[in-house]
Amino acid sequence: MTEPSVLPLPAALQSLQRHFSQMPPVLAMQIVAEDFQHGVLRLRAPLSANLNDKNNAFGGSLASLMTLASWSWLTLQLQLAGHRADVYVADSQLRYLAPVYEDLVACAAPVEPGGWDVFLATFRQRGKARIAMAAQVALHSGQVAASFTGRFAAMAKG
Amino acid sequence: MTEPSVLPLPAALQSLQRHFSQMPPVLAMQIVAEDFQHGVLRLRAPLSANLNDKNNAFGGSLASLMTLASWSWLTLQLQLAGHRADVYVADSQLRYLAPVYEDLVACAAPVEPGGWDVFLATFRQRGKARIAMAAQVALHSGQVAASFTGRFAAMAKG
Repeated sequence: MTEPSVLPLPAALQSLQRHFSQMPPVLAMQIVAEDFQHGVLRLRAPLSANLNDKNNAFGGSLASLMTLASWSWLTLQLQLAGHRADVYVADSQLRYLAPVYEDLVACAAPVEPGGWDVFLATFRQRGKARIAMAAQVALHSGQVAASFTGRFAAMAKG
Repeated sequence: MTEPSVLPLPAALQSLQRHFSQMPPVLAMQIVAEDFQHGVLRLRAPLSANLNDKNNAFGGSLASLMTLASWSWLTLQLQLAGHRADVYVADSQLRYLAPVYEDLVACAAPVEPGGWDVFLATFRQRGKARIAMAAQVALHSGQVAASFTGRFAAMAKG
Protein backbone atom coordinates (compact mmCIF):
# COMPACT_ATOMS: atom_id res chain seq x y z
CA MET A 1 0.00 0.00 0.00
CA THR A 2 1.48 3.37 -1.01
CA GLU A 3 1.37 6.37 1.30
CA PRO A 4 -1.21 8.90 0.01
CA SER A 5 0.44 12.02 -1.46
CA VAL A 6 -0.45 15.02 0.70
CA LEU A 7 -1.29 18.34 -1.01
CA PRO A 8 0.00 21.59 0.51
CA LEU A 9 -2.77 24.02 1.55
CA PRO A 10 -2.58 26.67 -1.24
CA ALA A 11 -2.73 23.93 -3.89
CA ALA A 12 -5.73 22.37 -2.11
CA LEU A 13 -7.53 25.75 -1.98
CA GLN A 14 -6.82 26.22 -5.71
CA SER A 15 -8.12 22.73 -6.41
CA LEU A 16 -11.30 23.63 -4.49
CA GLN A 17 -11.67 26.79 -6.57
CA ARG A 18 -11.29 24.71 -9.75
CA HIS A 19 -14.12 22.48 -8.46
CA PHE A 20 -16.24 25.63 -8.01
CA SER A 21 -15.53 26.81 -11.54
CA GLN A 22 -16.92 23.53 -12.89
CA MET A 23 -20.27 23.96 -11.08
CA PRO A 24 -22.48 26.44 -13.01
CA PRO A 25 -24.61 27.61 -10.03
CA VAL A 26 -21.48 28.12 -7.87
CA LEU A 27 -19.81 30.01 -10.71
CA ALA A 28 -22.93 32.20 -11.08
CA MET A 29 -22.89 33.02 -7.36
CA GLN A 30 -19.18 33.96 -7.82
CA ILE A 31 -18.14 32.01 -4.73
CA VAL A 32 -14.47 32.22 -3.73
CA ALA A 33 -12.57 29.81 -1.43
CA GLU A 34 -10.92 32.54 0.58
CA ASP A 35 -9.13 31.07 3.53
CA PHE A 36 -8.56 28.01 5.72
CA GLN A 37 -7.11 28.75 9.14
CA HIS A 38 -7.31 27.10 12.57
CA GLY A 39 -9.58 24.43 11.13
CA VAL A 40 -12.15 26.91 9.76
CA LEU A 41 -12.84 27.33 6.03
CA ARG A 42 -14.12 30.68 4.78
CA LEU A 43 -16.00 31.24 1.51
CA ARG A 44 -17.07 34.61 0.12
CA ALA A 45 -19.58 35.74 -2.52
CA PRO A 46 -20.42 39.26 -3.71
CA LEU A 47 -23.87 40.59 -2.75
CA SER A 48 -24.51 41.78 -6.33
CA ALA A 49 -24.61 38.20 -7.69
CA ASN A 50 -26.81 37.02 -4.83
CA LEU A 51 -29.58 39.60 -4.48
CA ASN A 52 -33.24 38.81 -3.77
CA ASP A 53 -36.29 41.00 -4.45
CA LYS A 54 -35.58 43.08 -1.31
CA ASN A 55 -32.02 44.02 -2.33
CA ASN A 56 -30.44 41.84 0.30
CA ALA A 57 -29.01 38.30 0.06
CA PHE A 58 -31.28 35.62 -1.41
CA GLY A 59 -32.06 32.90 1.16
CA GLY A 60 -31.14 30.24 -1.40
CA SER A 61 -27.70 31.82 -1.84
CA LEU A 62 -27.14 31.80 1.93
CA ALA A 63 -28.22 28.13 2.01
CA SER A 64 -25.97 27.31 -0.96
CA LEU A 65 -22.96 29.11 0.51
CA MET A 66 -23.22 27.41 3.92
CA THR A 67 -23.86 23.99 2.35
CA LEU A 68 -20.90 24.48 0.00
CA ALA A 69 -18.65 25.75 2.83
CA SER A 70 -19.33 22.56 4.80
CA TRP A 71 -18.94 20.35 1.73
CA SER A 72 -15.69 22.17 0.88
CA TRP A 73 -14.28 21.80 4.39
CA LEU A 74 -14.64 18.05 4.14
CA THR A 75 -13.41 17.85 0.54
CA LEU A 76 -10.38 20.00 1.40
CA GLN A 77 -9.48 18.03 4.54
CA LEU A 78 -9.78 14.71 2.71
CA GLN A 79 -7.52 16.09 -0.03
CA LEU A 80 -5.00 17.42 2.49
CA ALA A 81 -4.98 13.97 4.08
CA GLY A 82 -4.20 12.46 0.66
CA HIS A 83 -7.57 10.84 -0.04
CA ARG A 84 -9.85 10.94 -3.07
CA ALA A 85 -13.54 10.85 -2.14
CA ASP A 86 -17.02 11.92 -3.20
CA VAL A 87 -18.66 14.09 -0.56
CA TYR A 88 -22.46 14.35 -0.23
CA VAL A 89 -24.82 16.39 1.94
CA ALA A 90 -27.42 14.18 3.65
CA ASP A 91 -29.53 16.71 5.54
CA SER A 92 -29.41 20.24 6.94
CA GLN A 93 -31.11 22.68 9.29
CA LEU A 94 -30.95 26.42 8.65
CA ARG A 95 -31.92 29.56 10.53
CA TYR A 96 -32.18 32.96 8.90
CA LEU A 97 -31.55 35.55 11.62
CA ALA A 98 -30.90 38.90 9.90
CA PRO A 99 -30.94 40.27 6.34
CA VAL A 100 -27.53 40.55 4.64
CA TYR A 101 -26.81 43.85 2.85
CA GLU A 102 -23.11 43.16 2.28
CA ASP A 103 -20.91 40.48 0.69
CA LEU A 104 -21.79 36.99 1.93
CA VAL A 105 -19.08 35.39 4.07
CA ALA A 106 -19.60 31.85 5.35
CA CYS A 107 -17.36 29.89 7.74
CA ALA A 108 -17.58 26.14 8.28
CA ALA A 109 -16.12 23.56 10.65
CA PRO A 110 -17.24 20.28 12.24
CA VAL A 111 -19.85 20.55 15.01
CA GLU A 112 -17.66 18.46 17.35
CA PRO A 113 -14.03 19.56 17.89
CA GLY A 114 -12.84 15.94 17.61
CA GLY A 115 -15.23 15.16 14.73
CA TRP A 116 -12.55 15.11 12.04
CA ASP A 117 -10.29 12.60 13.84
CA VAL A 118 -13.18 10.18 14.33
CA PHE A 119 -14.34 10.72 10.72
CA LEU A 120 -10.85 10.13 9.28
CA ALA A 121 -10.26 6.96 11.32
CA THR A 122 -13.63 5.56 10.14
CA PHE A 123 -13.02 6.64 6.53
CA ARG A 124 -9.59 4.94 6.48
CA GLN A 125 -11.04 1.77 7.94
CA ARG A 126 -14.27 1.49 5.91
CA GLY A 127 -13.80 3.75 2.88
CA LYS A 128 -16.79 5.81 3.98
CA ALA A 129 -17.83 7.93 6.96
CA ARG A 130 -20.26 10.61 8.16
CA ILE A 131 -19.71 13.89 9.97
CA ALA A 132 -21.88 16.69 11.39
CA MET A 133 -20.83 20.12 10.11
CA ALA A 134 -21.74 23.64 11.24
CA ALA A 135 -21.58 26.83 9.18
CA GLN A 136 -22.67 30.40 9.57
CA VAL A 137 -22.84 33.65 7.66
CA ALA A 138 -21.65 36.49 9.89
CA LEU A 139 -21.97 40.19 9.12
CA HIS A 140 -18.98 42.54 9.17
CA SER A 141 -20.30 43.71 12.58
CA GLY A 142 -19.93 40.17 13.94
CA GLN A 143 -23.69 39.51 14.07
CA VAL A 144 -24.67 36.04 12.85
CA ALA A 145 -27.10 36.46 9.92
CA ALA A 146 -27.69 32.78 9.12
CA SER A 147 -26.70 29.48 10.71
CA PHE A 148 -26.49 25.94 9.38
CA THR A 149 -25.92 22.44 10.67
CA GLY A 150 -25.87 19.44 8.39
CA ARG A 151 -24.67 15.86 8.07
CA PHE A 152 -22.26 14.94 5.28
CA ALA A 153 -21.07 11.59 3.99
CA ALA A 154 -17.88 10.75 2.07
CA MET A 155 -17.14 7.66 0.03
CA ALA A 156 -13.69 6.72 -1.23
CA LYS A 157 -13.20 7.00 -5.01
CA GLY A 158 -11.78 4.22 -7.13
CA MET B 1 -61.07 50.96 3.35
CA THR B 2 -60.87 49.87 -0.31
CA GLU B 3 -61.28 46.25 -1.34
CA PRO B 4 -57.92 44.84 -2.49
CA SER B 5 -57.76 44.31 -6.26
CA VAL B 6 -57.42 40.60 -6.98
CA LEU B 7 -55.04 39.42 -9.73
CA PRO B 8 -56.09 36.54 -12.01
CA LEU B 9 -53.75 33.50 -11.84
CA PRO B 10 -51.80 33.82 -15.14
CA ALA B 11 -50.99 37.47 -14.34
CA ALA B 12 -49.86 36.45 -10.85
CA LEU B 13 -47.59 33.69 -12.28
CA GLN B 14 -46.14 36.23 -14.71
CA SER B 15 -45.58 38.67 -11.87
CA LEU B 16 -43.76 35.89 -9.97
CA GLN B 17 -41.58 35.25 -13.02
CA ARG B 18 -40.76 38.97 -13.19
CA HIS B 19 -39.68 38.78 -9.54
CA PHE B 20 -37.39 35.86 -10.48
CA SER B 21 -35.86 37.82 -13.34
CA GLN B 22 -34.84 40.54 -10.90
CA MET B 23 -32.94 38.11 -8.63
CA PRO B 24 -29.51 37.33 -10.17
CA PRO B 25 -29.03 33.89 -8.52
CA VAL B 26 -32.55 32.81 -9.51
CA LEU B 27 -31.98 34.04 -13.04
CA ALA B 28 -28.68 32.09 -13.18
CA MET B 29 -30.44 28.91 -12.05
CA GLN B 30 -32.99 29.55 -14.86
CA ILE B 31 -35.94 28.88 -12.56
CA VAL B 32 -39.40 28.98 -14.15
CA ALA B 33 -42.75 29.36 -12.32
CA GLU B 34 -44.45 26.59 -14.22
CA ASP B 35 -47.83 25.87 -12.70
CA PHE B 36 -50.19 26.44 -9.79
CA GLN B 37 -52.98 23.90 -9.47
CA HIS B 38 -55.00 22.46 -6.59
CA GLY B 39 -53.09 24.64 -4.15
CA VAL B 40 -49.64 23.35 -5.24
CA LEU B 41 -47.03 25.57 -6.92
CA ARG B 42 -44.48 23.98 -9.25
CA LEU B 43 -41.10 25.46 -10.20
CA ARG B 44 -38.66 23.99 -12.70
CA ALA B 45 -34.96 24.51 -13.44
CA PRO B 46 -32.75 22.87 -16.07
CA LEU B 47 -30.10 20.43 -14.79
CA SER B 48 -27.42 22.06 -17.01
CA ALA B 49 -27.54 25.33 -15.01
CA ASN B 50 -27.52 23.50 -11.68
CA LEU B 51 -24.80 20.87 -11.92
CA ASN B 52 -22.38 19.95 -9.14
CA ASP B 53 -18.97 18.25 -9.45
CA LYS B 54 -20.64 14.82 -9.84
CA ASN B 55 -22.79 15.84 -12.83
CA ASN B 56 -26.01 15.76 -10.85
CA ALA B 57 -27.96 18.60 -9.19
CA PHE B 58 -26.02 20.83 -6.78
CA GLY B 59 -27.41 20.57 -3.22
CA GLY B 60 -27.51 24.36 -2.99
CA SER B 61 -29.68 24.52 -6.12
CA LEU B 62 -32.09 21.97 -4.62
CA ALA B 63 -32.19 24.03 -1.41
CA SER B 64 -32.69 27.25 -3.37
CA LEU B 65 -35.45 25.78 -5.52
CA MET B 66 -37.44 24.39 -2.59
CA THR B 67 -36.98 27.58 -0.54
CA LEU B 68 -38.04 29.69 -3.52
CA ALA B 69 -41.02 27.42 -4.28
CA SER B 70 -42.31 27.90 -0.73
CA TRP B 71 -41.60 31.64 -0.78
CA SER B 72 -43.33 31.88 -4.16
CA TRP B 73 -46.41 29.97 -2.99
CA LEU B 74 -46.94 32.50 -0.22
CA THR B 75 -46.11 35.52 -2.40
CA LEU B 76 -48.48 34.28 -5.10
CA GLN B 77 -51.35 33.54 -2.71
CA LEU B 78 -51.01 36.94 -1.04
CA GLN B 79 -51.07 38.59 -4.45
CA LEU B 80 -54.09 36.55 -5.56
CA ALA B 81 -55.82 37.67 -2.34
CA GLY B 82 -55.04 41.28 -3.25
CA HIS B 83 -52.33 41.98 -0.67
CA ARG B 84 -48.87 43.50 -0.99
CA ALA B 85 -46.37 41.96 1.42
CA ASP B 86 -42.73 41.15 1.97
CA VAL B 87 -42.20 37.42 2.50
CA TYR B 88 -39.21 36.06 4.44
CA VAL B 89 -37.89 32.58 5.21
CA ALA B 90 -37.23 32.14 8.95
CA ASP B 91 -35.84 28.60 9.11
CA SER B 92 -35.76 25.33 7.19
CA GLN B 93 -34.97 21.63 7.42
CA LEU B 94 -33.83 19.70 4.36
CA ARG B 95 -33.20 16.07 3.50
CA TYR B 96 -31.30 14.93 0.43
CA LEU B 97 -32.55 11.48 -0.49
CA ALA B 98 -31.36 10.71 -4.03
CA PRO B 99 -29.12 12.35 -6.65
CA VAL B 100 -30.96 14.25 -9.41
CA TYR B 101 -29.77 13.56 -12.98
CA GLU B 102 -32.69 15.36 -14.70
CA ASP B 103 -34.33 18.79 -14.65
CA LEU B 104 -35.14 19.96 -11.12
CA VAL B 105 -38.88 20.15 -10.38
CA ALA B 106 -40.02 21.42 -6.97
CA CYS B 107 -43.57 21.53 -5.62
CA ALA B 108 -44.63 23.54 -2.57
CA ALA B 109 -47.72 23.90 -0.37
CA PRO B 110 -48.46 24.60 3.31
CA VAL B 111 -47.69 21.79 5.78
CA GLU B 112 -51.21 22.02 7.24
CA PRO B 113 -54.17 21.84 4.83
CA GLY B 114 -55.91 24.71 6.67
CA GLY B 115 -52.67 26.67 7.09
CA TRP B 116 -53.48 29.30 4.49
CA ASP B 117 -56.88 30.23 5.96
CA VAL B 118 -55.37 30.71 9.43
CA PHE B 119 -52.44 32.63 7.94
CA LEU B 120 -54.69 34.93 5.88
CA ALA B 121 -57.02 35.71 8.79
CA THR B 122 -54.01 36.60 10.98
CA PHE B 123 -52.38 38.63 8.21
CA ARG B 124 -55.57 40.66 7.65
CA GLN B 125 -55.94 41.31 11.35
CA ARG B 126 -52.31 42.11 12.27
CA GLY B 127 -50.58 42.94 8.98
CA LYS B 128 -48.18 40.04 9.57
CA ALA B 129 -48.35 36.27 9.99
CA ARG B 130 -46.29 33.06 9.90
CA ILE B 131 -46.87 29.77 8.12
CA ALA B 132 -45.12 26.38 7.90
CA MET B 133 -44.44 25.32 4.30
CA ALA B 134 -43.39 22.00 2.78
CA ALA B 135 -41.66 21.43 -0.55
CA GLN B 136 -40.05 18.54 -2.35
CA VAL B 137 -38.10 17.75 -5.49
CA ALA B 138 -39.51 14.61 -7.10
CA LEU B 139 -37.92 12.67 -9.95
CA HIS B 140 -39.78 11.87 -13.16
CA SER B 141 -40.19 8.34 -11.73
CA GLY B 142 -42.09 9.76 -8.75
CA GLN B 143 -39.25 9.15 -6.26
CA VAL B 144 -38.69 12.03 -3.83
CA ALA B 145 -35.09 13.24 -4.24
CA ALA B 146 -35.13 16.06 -1.68
CA SER B 147 -37.59 17.31 0.91
CA PHE B 148 -37.97 20.63 2.71
CA THR B 149 -39.99 22.13 5.53
CA GLY B 150 -39.62 25.73 6.59
CA ARG B 151 -41.33 28.58 8.39
CA PHE B 152 -42.08 31.76 6.49
CA ALA B 153 -43.24 35.19 7.66
CA ALA B 154 -45.04 37.90 5.71
CA MET B 155 -45.37 41.59 6.58
CA ALA B 156 -47.79 43.98 4.86
CA LYS B 157 -46.13 46.60 2.65
CA GLY B 158 -46.89 50.29 2.92
